[in-house]
Amino acid sequence: MRIRIPATSANLGPGFDSLGLAIALYNYVTIKPYMCQSISIRGQGSKKPRLKVNNVFVSIFTEIYQELVGKKDNFRFEFENNIPFSRGLGSSSAVIVGAIASAYHMANIKVSKEKVLNRALVYESHPDNIAPAVYGGFTTSIVEDGVVKSLKKELPKTIKAVMVIPDRAMSTAHSRTQLPKTYHMSDITYNSSRVGLMSAAFFSEDWELLRFVAKDKIHENRRMKKLKELFDVRKIALKNGALMSTLSGSGSSFFSMTYEKDAQKLVKVLKESFEAFKVASFDFDNIGYEIIES
Amino acid sequence: MRIRIPATSANLGPGFDSLGLAIALYNYVTIKPYMCQSISIRGQGSKKPRLKVNNVFVSIFTEIYQELVGKKDNFRFEFENNIPFSRGLGSSSAVIVGAIASAYHMANIKVSKEKVLNRALVYESHPDNIAPAVYGGFTTSIVEDGVVKSLKKELPKTIKAVMVIPDRAMSTAHSRTQLPKTYHMSDITYNSSRVGLMSAAFFSEDWELLRFVAKDKIHENRRMKKLKELFDVRKIALKNGALMSTLSGSGSSFFSMTYEKDAQKLVKVLKESFEAFKVASFDFDNIGYEIIES
Repeated sequence: MRIRIPATSANLGPGFDSLGLAIALYNYVTIKPYMCQSISIRGQGSKKPRLKVNNVFVSIFTEIYQELVGKKDNFRFEFENNIPFSRGLGSSSAVIVGAIASAYHMANIKVSKEKVLNRALVYESHPDNIAPAVYGGFTTSIVEDGVVKSLKKELPKTIKAVMVIPDRAMSTAHSRTQLPKTYHMSDITYNSSRVGLMSAAFFSEDWELLRFVAKDKIHENRRMKKLKELFDVRKIALKNGALMSTLSGSGSSFFSMTYEKDAQKLVKVLKESFEAFKVASFDFDNIGYEIIES
Repeated sequence: MRIRIPATSANLGPGFDSLGLAIALYNYVTIKPYMCQSISIRGQGSKKPRLKVNNVFVSIFTEIYQELVGKKDNFRFEFENNIPFSRGLGSSSAVIVGAIASAYHMANIKVSKEKVLNRALVYESHPDNIAPAVYGGFTTSIVEDGVVKSLKKELPKTIKAVMVIPDRAMSTAHSRTQLPKTYHMSDITYNSSRVGLMSAAFFSEDWELLRFVAKDKIHENRRMKKLKELFDVRKIALKNGALMSTLSGSGSSFFSMTYEKDAQKLVKVLKESFEAFKVASFDFDNIGYEIIES
């Protein structure tokens, strides 16, 4: 079998732990029965030997496959990793979601996307990346009594993602500890009202409204302080046609959304301004994980 | 001229200061040039003589009318008030919105709903009631640099509002001071993620999802403690077909949403349980304020 899983960008400014969207930048994994357990890695991580010994995809796959079929079998896993690690592009969620869906497929058991999403929540406690990795599109999610509830909106070709991917990582764990323990009501209302209007703007395709709803008062600026160039990324993006420009997950990448016609110009301007960073435009993914060969 | 302004229910659980909807329960005001300033009141407030001396509608109308035409004229105001006062049904917002729209009309100056909404923000600093009073339907709003941005979704006849209106008021000012000054991240995320998914559920008419998104961890239970019967109202409503059941604004009314087919049964059960409270079902209003006679 061969599975494809998209990169994702979460938070989108105010939507801490709830909003996310899927980007047409994919990891691929090919899995086949084999005489022994075997791993090959191309792309991201190919130069990290420890990923062949201690591989999260293989661990989760094995755990679930054994649960489903009641025995251990050997497989060869061929990874083709295009989603950068530790850059706020959902590489961990892609691994988790891909491993779960693949285990069901190799066990020959049909599984709904909803079930894959809810099993993924065991490994990743927030739904903001795993929901778009499962469904594609823009997703707005909650967790209620340990169950993810999520709505998805497909995104048209007329809008694009412009990603700025720095040459350095920002660790999520470390990133979370930087945040204050408590917040004032005015900041809470500021954010939560924007989460509501941003969701409505996506669902009604009112892209112009995105210019007003993407600011955050809870986490973004605090996190960006660890990579100060990001303040300039945002400023330049918003000056050059971005409808919104937000830290991707907990960083270090920066996500901007533009009309199709403005994407290439924005890529050019950002490339010229941040020579050490990768800059590229992408379509949005509207499918989520997909088994592309049985 | 004659204007009609709907009642509104704000917050809707997690949507503190941002979400609201309009209910087909209306105040009417008839205004005509007159030899002196004159006020008559039918319905709510008809037995409060001070409302003829110190009338907020007349004050705001006069202020704006004078600004627009540069002089003071005399009018007769006939109020037909059906929205109860101080019950969380948006009676103040109806007054503010109605007065502003009427002043422009009597001054013979065209005004957009957007402008009425933004002038209303001067008198009422949160957009959660004034936005649905202006536009009707379900509204999700933010305030950015003193300007309200709002999206509206029309609500179909297949869903109804069931309102429980207690015999006692809960003051908004007092109600706000009961709330803690700061909140923890987990409660903030709990609420803001629900604001996002609730907005998406309304915009995609996924009514079943409302069963999961209306809980709040910021204000509702704290406020309800001042009128403990409301805990039973919510419990009974959710057991008897309500899709969601939330404190209306800062109370004391309680708003439940049901499918059309369940509304009458829910009204009956709630009436039997709370004999001292008014219980009635309403359509939603999809128009907002409307000048029904020129």
